[in-house]
Amino acid sequence: MSGKLYAIGTGPGAADLITVRAAKILGSVDIVYAPAARKGEGTSLALSIIREYISNGTEVKERLFPMTSDIAKKEEAWLGVAQEIASDINAGKEVAFVSLGDVMLYSTWVSVFERLPKGVDIEIIPGITSFALIAAKTQRPLVMDTQSLAIVPCTAPKEEIDQALVQHSCLVLMKAGTRFSELKKQIEAHKLLNYAVLVSDASLESEKRYTNLADVPESERLPYFSTILINKEWAV
Amino acid sequence: MSGKLYAIGTGPGAADLITVRAAKILGSVDIVYAPAARKGEGTSLALSIIREYISNGTEVKERLFPMTSDIAKKEEAWLGVAQEIASDINAGKEVAFVSLGDVMLYSTWVSVFERLPKGVDIEIIPGITSFALIAAKTQRPLVMDTQSLAIVPCTAPKEEIDQALVQHSCLVLMKAGTRFSELKKQIEAHKLLNYAVLVSDASLESEKRYTNLADVPESERLPYFSTILINKEWAV
Repeated sequence: MSGKLYAIGTGPGAADLITVRAAKILGSVDIVYAPAARKGEGTSLALSIIREYISNGTEVKERLFPMTSDIAKKEEAWLGVAQEIASDINAGKEVAFVSLGDVMLYSTWVSVFERLPKGVDIEIIPGITSFALIAAKTQRPLVMDTQSLAIVPCTAPKEEIDQALVQHSCLVLMKAGTRFSELKKQIEAHKLLNYAVLVSDASLESEKRYTNLADVPESERLPYFSTILINKEWAV
Repeated sequence: MSGKLYAIGTGPGAADLITVRAAKILGSVDIVYAPAARKGEGTSLALSIIREYISNGTEVKERLFPMTSDIAKKEEAWLGVAQEIASDINAGKEVAFVSLGDVMLYSTWVSVFERLPKGVDIEIIPGITSFALIAAKTQRPLVMDTQSLAIVPCTAPKEEIDQALVQHSCLVLMKAGTRFSELKKQIEAHKLLNYAVLVSDASLESEKRYTNLADVPESERLPYFSTILINKEWAV
């Protein structure tokens, strides 16, 4: 296989939060694969973030990764894209696969990566995570000295979130949009509402920022990409 | 205060792993503050990473943050730099403070930030963390789906590291250089050596990579910036 595959984290949303290395690579590859959650061209968020770095001669392949509980459908999408990429690499192409945030952290990339045939030359370029940006924007540190940090998705079991709230000085809850009402109650039970901030769609035009979780109504309808940052050492 | 302060994460070591935004800001500020752990000019690692982005007209202020257990000495350094920055901002200067990795994660920046007077206009630019780069380099994912990740410094109590090894599917141990022998025994007790990789000085010239912790002698002398990544779902 004579081509090469670059997996590139686009960062959380703003075009200038990608790395200098990623920008350079995107300007030189033959093909860019971008995941989309909905049908139709131009729906890939990752693509919209990095489009300005892509050269005119580069082919863009938006590919649908359906958000569904139907595992067979997901499997089909992951395997299909893995095979298509392998075929491009075999033909000697330089290929980039882009994904939001960091490609090794809750990313579609890993599901494609696992299904690639052996022998593909892969280079992975890390990206800025949403929680690093949220800490920066709200000016709330993540961890210092001997403190520890846990990153937990809101789809994790309730007991796991409870344990993390007790054991770590800082907790990041990813994808909080889907279960916000329960989460707010749970954080309140730990008396930590005043230590929590919430940011949705960080660095996108639709960004919303709540600097004290106590101010957000439980009934609030939040976007999928909502992140809660709780730091017990820093009351709001 | 008419100036502005940018806190900039330089990423883990390679110059092209800073963000496009950071590169642009570094090219336009009046003054760059860079922390050094030893006396003498040119010893700041953060400065060496980003020097190529600094304009000729920019003043560089390397400042010593001694690595000592003497809290009074540390406090003096943090406060001194905070006051000096505030004075520059008061004089209308655009100032950058650079620090390794991400500035909100185990960073000197937070200690300076806490000591700045109210009213300083601050913008924080996130950086790539060492653990994101290590996952990328060793091609080992951090987390997927409902999995959780803990970031724990090796200076944390032994019990806390034990708990994190049990509870999270992925664990990052930061600054593992100082306590490697004990850590290796501890990870072995959990039967997780074959799930662990270790990288020192990631993306620096002195980088060392061990793709299976079982292969690293307990007696190995490792650099301060050594990171262990354990993912229970991915045997080496």
